[in-house]
Amino acid sequence: MSVVWCNGEIVDQLHLKSNERGLMLGDGIFETIAVRAGNPIWLPEHIQRMGDAAAELGIGFSSENIFDAVKAVLKHSQAEAEVLRITLTRGPTLRGLAAEGTTPSLIITLSSFDRSALQKSVRLATSAIRRNETAPSCRLKTLSYIDAIAAAREVSSRADDALMLNSKGHVASTTIGNIFLLKANVLSTPSTDQAILPGIARQKLIRGAAELGLIVEERAVEIKELHAADCVFVTNSLRLATPVSSLDGKACGTRDIGFIQGYYEQHSKGDAT
Amino acid sequence: MSVVWCNGEIVDQLHLKSNERGLMLGDGIFETIAVRAGNPIWLPEHIQRMGDAAAELGIGFSSENIFDAVKAVLKHSQAEAEVLRITLTRGPTLRGLAAEGTTPSLIITLSSFDRSALQKSVRLATSAIRRNETAPSCRLKTLSYIDAIAAAREVSSRADDALMLNSKGHVASTTIGNIFLLKANVLSTPSTDQAILPGIARQKLIRGAAELGLIVEERAVEIKELHAADCVFVTNSLRLATPVSSLDGKACGTRDIGFIQGYYEQHSKGDAT
Repeated sequence: MSVVWCNGEIVDQLHLKSNERGLMLGDGIFETIAVRAGNPIWLPEHIQRMGDAAAELGIGFSSENIFDAVKAVLKHSQAEAEVLRITLTRGPTLRGLAAEGTTPSLIITLSSFDRSALQKSVRLATSAIRRNETAPSCRLKTLSYIDAIAAAREVSSRADDALMLNSKGHVASTTIGNIFLLKANVLSTPSTDQAILPGIARQKLIRGAAELGLIVEERAVEIKELHAADCVFVTNSLRLATPVSSLDGKACGTRDIGFIQGYYEQHSKGDAT
Repeated sequence: MSVVWCNGEIVDQLHLKSNERGLMLGDGIFETIAVRAGNPIWLPEHIQRMGDAAAELGIGFSSENIFDAVKAVLKHSQAEAEVLRITLTRGPTLRGLAAEGTTPSLIITLSSFDRSALQKSVRLATSAIRRNETAPSCRLKTLSYIDAIAAAREVSSRADDALMLNSKGHVASTTIGNIFLLKANVLSTPSTDQAILPGIARQKLIRGAAELGLIVEERAVEIKELHAADCVFVTNSLRLATPVSSLDGKACGTRDIGFIQGYYEQHSKGDAT
């Protein structure tokens, strides 16, 4: 079902030291990457983002090692649609939050991914947990995910995912994707200073907007704008674009985003590693 | 040097499934507990706090299992001063942030702890990373520690630890302890709504204050109050009370906290498990 690679070899289970910081302190980063027929989608962009996060957090990083490991794992690809997760941690360290690591842990998993089971649309509900503009955990794809987990759990009885605001009360993102709204030919999305993770799928759409006849606004977005939009949708690397059917129980605009989904399909056919 | 117990047995290394949420998403909680001559200090209070956090996060919890495991680990105690760390995660789950776990992972380590190497005082510097009043990661002792790690790293060249403010700009805590200030006979500390982890050592001091002739104020604390205090100190379960010698390069008040340190020594002689 799943191929697991940990620090140099394919394994059945993870074998880690007891002072592994990824486990003990959420001290690491990850990327999840769609794989189509053995080809990872937007791999260089994901590795670039991971490298930037590693540099900011002082975690040892070698893109060459990661590309090599991904290549080794993808030899075991066996389904049309899969998901590759690359996890890089600070590795084992001595005591002390600021302690340096010497040997980062690199863990890669390749799992099947049933695209046909993806939701056609999602209901969102606003979480009481805000995203924090000053926090690396909100800007970088780190292992410290508990706030998003708690937000997803908070709304799970009434919605498919949580809408998270930032500490100023502006729209940030869902727990797993970026938010866009469309009004006439203007595509608006929270800017990178709004406590969002700058998604790769987000970036692709922003760069492709002109080709789709859309003007992009990256800025602070108010929640009332979502209610007034022609449509609202969520983007991420695995699900691409998913319409939001309702927000806090109120139906959202129903303008069709097929042309955006089509753009993504066209631009996610897989790069060579 | 270290005894490691993982899911029922003493081990050399941790053996974990590749979808272990503690590692993959910082989805778990922990406690660090001082051990003196084989006796864990304030163990029931730590287990109680862990149980409260587990309930809030929906992580399976059995205090009986944890007490039993701690007892098994403490049989291997061999130093006068040690530190016990109890880590409880959601365990392996299916994909999806809101996915339920069925088998939490319980990991306990017992390591030597050199009390003579503890700093006699600490220099603090204010971090640009704020603590978030709405975030479980700031109120509960979760594995999602990356923001505190980044804050500690941010100031490490000029201070021993970071002072973290909350999103309103009030004093919250350091990355590893609670902040107190003393002015005449008034002991002030940020209240639990200020994005702090409610420390066990903090609670002990608040409850013992009357005995020490002090009046306690739990409230919002301004940074300028720290500069104007008779003294400022940090509390945590391992280090007890440590004076702050300077904040952002300015010397802090030097009133002696020996009477508070003495109170802690007297009340941390170890409970029976």
